[in-house]
Amino acid sequence: MPEAPFDWLDRHAEQRRRAGLSRTLRPRPADDPVLDLAGNDYLGLTHHPRVTRAAADAALRWGAGSTGSRLVTGTTALHGELEAELAALCGAEAALVFASGYAANLAAVSALTGPGTLIASDAANHASLIDGCRLSRAEKAVVPHADPEAFAKALAGHDGRAVAVTDSVFSVDGDAAPLAALAVVCREAGAGLLVDDAHGLGVLGEGGAGAVSAAGLAGSPDVVTTVTLSKSLGSQGGAVVGPARVIRHLVENARTFIFDTGLAPAAVGGALEALRVIREEPGRPVRTREVARELSERLASAGLLASTPDAAVVSVRAPSPEAALRWAERCREQGVAVGCFRPPSVPDGISRLRLTARADLTAAQVDAAVGVVVGTAPREPIGD
Amino acid sequence: MPEAPFDWLDRHAEQRRRAGLSRTLRPRPADDPVLDLAGNDYLGLTHHPRVTRAAADAALRWGAGSTGSRLVTGTTALHGELEAELAALCGAEAALVFASGYAANLAAVSALTGPGTLIASDAANHASLIDGCRLSRAEKAVVPHADPEAFAKALAGHDGRAVAVTDSVFSVDGDAAPLAALAVVCREAGAGLLVDDAHGLGVLGEGGAGAVSAAGLAGSPDVVTTVTLSKSLGSQGGAVVGPARVIRHLVENARTFIFDTGLAPAAVGGALEALRVIREEPGRPVRTREVARELSERLASAGLLASTPDAAVVSVRAPSPEAALRWAERCREQGVAVGCFRPPSVPDGISRLRLTARADLTAAQVDAAVGVVVGTAPREPIGD
Ligand SMILES: Cc1ncc(COP(=O)(O)O)c(C=O)c1O
Ligand SMILES: Cc1ncc(COP(=O)(O)O)c(C=O)c1O
Repeated sequence: MPEAPFDWLDRHAEQRRRAGLSRTLRPRPADDPVLDLAGNDYLGLTHHPRVTRAAADAALRWGAGSTGSRLVTGTTALHGELEAELAALCGAEAALVFASGYAANLAAVSALTGPGTLIASDAANHASLIDGCRLSRAEKAVVPHADPEAFAKALAGHDGRAVAVTDSVFSVDGDAAPLAALAVVCREAGAGLLVDDAHGLGVLGEGGAGAVSAAGLAGSPDVVTTVTLSKSLGSQGGAVVGPARVIRHLVENARTFIFDTGLAPAAVGGALEALRVIREEPGRPVRTREVARELSERLASAGLLASTPDAAVVSVRAPSPEAALRWAERCREQGVAVGCFRPPSVPDGISRLRLTARADLTAAQVDAAVGVVVGTAPREPIGD
Repeated sequence: MPEAPFDWLDRHAEQRRRAGLSRTLRPRPADDPVLDLAGNDYLGLTHHPRVTRAAADAALRWGAGSTGSRLVTGTTALHGELEAELAALCGAEAALVFASGYAANLAAVSALTGPGTLIASDAANHASLIDGCRLSRAEKAVVPHADPEAFAKALAGHDGRAVAVTDSVFSVDGDAAPLAALAVVCREAGAGLLVDDAHGLGVLGEGGAGAVSAAGLAGSPDVVTTVTLSKSLGSQGGAVVGPARVIRHLVENARTFIFDTGLAPAAVGGALEALRVIREEPGRPVRTREVARELSERLASAGLLASTPDAAVVSVRAPSPEAALRWAERCREQGVAVGCFRPPSVPDGISRLRLTARADLTAAQVDAAVGVVVGTAPREPIGD
């Protein structure tokens, strides 16, 4: 009997299982007692009563969905308000909201480039930027991680339009891109600079204005920033922030804008209220960075290979994928949720735990988290 | 002076303006008095008090966002409930919820194919399916619209894995794909069948079970269905529905699942309540189809080139992009919102108005809509 169309999926799953790379979903309850150091709720706003109330009110007032593409029926005045406040926080001319950060990245990369354009892309960039490159049909140069000279070299070899693309804070290790130096390189090469500030917005910069602002690049005519509403802003969705003509171009050309349903009102309302909380409480980003530094320092002094955080993410190396998984499991058994990154989700093949700081973690919670992560660490030596 | 990186965007915008293809966002107020025949809220559930209340309650109880990838912290018990009920409605083994229908399509197409696989793709497929093909790196054959024999021919020429991909109801013209015939063709060729039921779920099939169920294909091991939560379910998000092993494969491999933040609780809660309303009120899908038929018949008897609807969408041809835009504008001035589709959003270059039926339209509203669309029709002859 010939093989049925989807039989190969079982073999594929078996291979993953043998390699110790199976993944399963673990639904959490509403009142999860676990201490969360795995999510991206950096400012602790996901459950903030003002933010959840605003999300709820938006659903009640504007409907559970946006009913269509933002070019047809899917743009509400609430979307417009959020765009104005996002642009203001980031010091940009304009902003455009998408249904996800993933969609915003697909849009920005593919609509601002195309056949004939060179994209110089950091080797550790997020999957959504990489998919954007694939959709763009542009020429692509993958550049060694966080290396302005390598970017300069890649851009020098190209005649015609070019765009350099980088995360601002890399999602797995939490290290920052050298944005100011990259901007100089781009300016010299006549290239645009596209920065995914998913993990910088709300954490870095004056009042959480983000990594681009912190690098002195806010309002620059040659820099485009993408952000998500799903991390520091505690909601869902994404946005592109930048020069007005870039935003207009995306409205008219970006496929994930034109052919996708607009972001649901509840997500818009939640993110908008989160921006207002951040404005009124500028200490939140500062506290998040403090917690991250403290986590890193205490794990390192206990002998673990913890990264030095540039924002809210601390990664800790594990000796193997299996050991990483076991470590994360033991943390969870002791009441602390941490991320566990294994191939292929790690750029260099090295498995690690990923811990995230939150502005609302108390000193006692930080103590408890450090105690559990150190106490459950594998005994095998952790290579460098 | 050399050109700055984004100067070309202005030239591009000018070209679009000259071609009459500029697009602008028109934010709507919360209490929009306009009669909406442009959105995709086919069952009238977006503003249903039970659905908006459930969305609001989910935000209050579960938070404004899901805080991370569904593989890390982004899966709640609420996501699980929605998946179980979606699978039950569609008569499938399992379902997997994504942040958007667009993301679900990218995932299903790219993760179920790959280099060496042939994708036979209907020429009128939605942008998200086309982008999924591009991301897959599979071999791709674009097949003439809604033509099972053409699919058979495309599949016959290929050795190795193959998947046929089609919308169930095409979004612009509202015509249905010949799913039962396509399934026969696929079975004979040993190919999988992937159906995007974005415009069929909630409208077609017993109790709104969708086009795949209506074609007698529910639960078929070789058929995978994608749906959106943003149209009939009045919310936001998407899902893949199908055999359990397909779902498991997507959990482990689909990039827009692994690397995207989980759908926000409010959207999950809204869609879940919409499913319950549909179960309790099976007359809603029936009424939607009736309204669509009535719209089409009355526009046709007034001499307009209206499509015969297979589901909830009726399209009406316009003589030119400019005439379509003017027509839609005049409808809006008279209180009726209709969609206006112009190149490049139309598969065949023919501009048209797009009208959508809703289960909650009253007879008086249908009268009013028909009166306005007919009364504002262009005087130029409309070619065939
Ligand atoms: C660096 C980066 N960019 C983009 C995204 C996608 O954003 P979203 O999850 O809001 O779609 C993520 C994570 O999810 C990310 O880590
Ligand atoms: C046929 C089709 N598939 C997929 C999508 C994408 O779904 P969503 O807007 O929920 O992301 C749409 C429309 O938006 C559509 O019309």
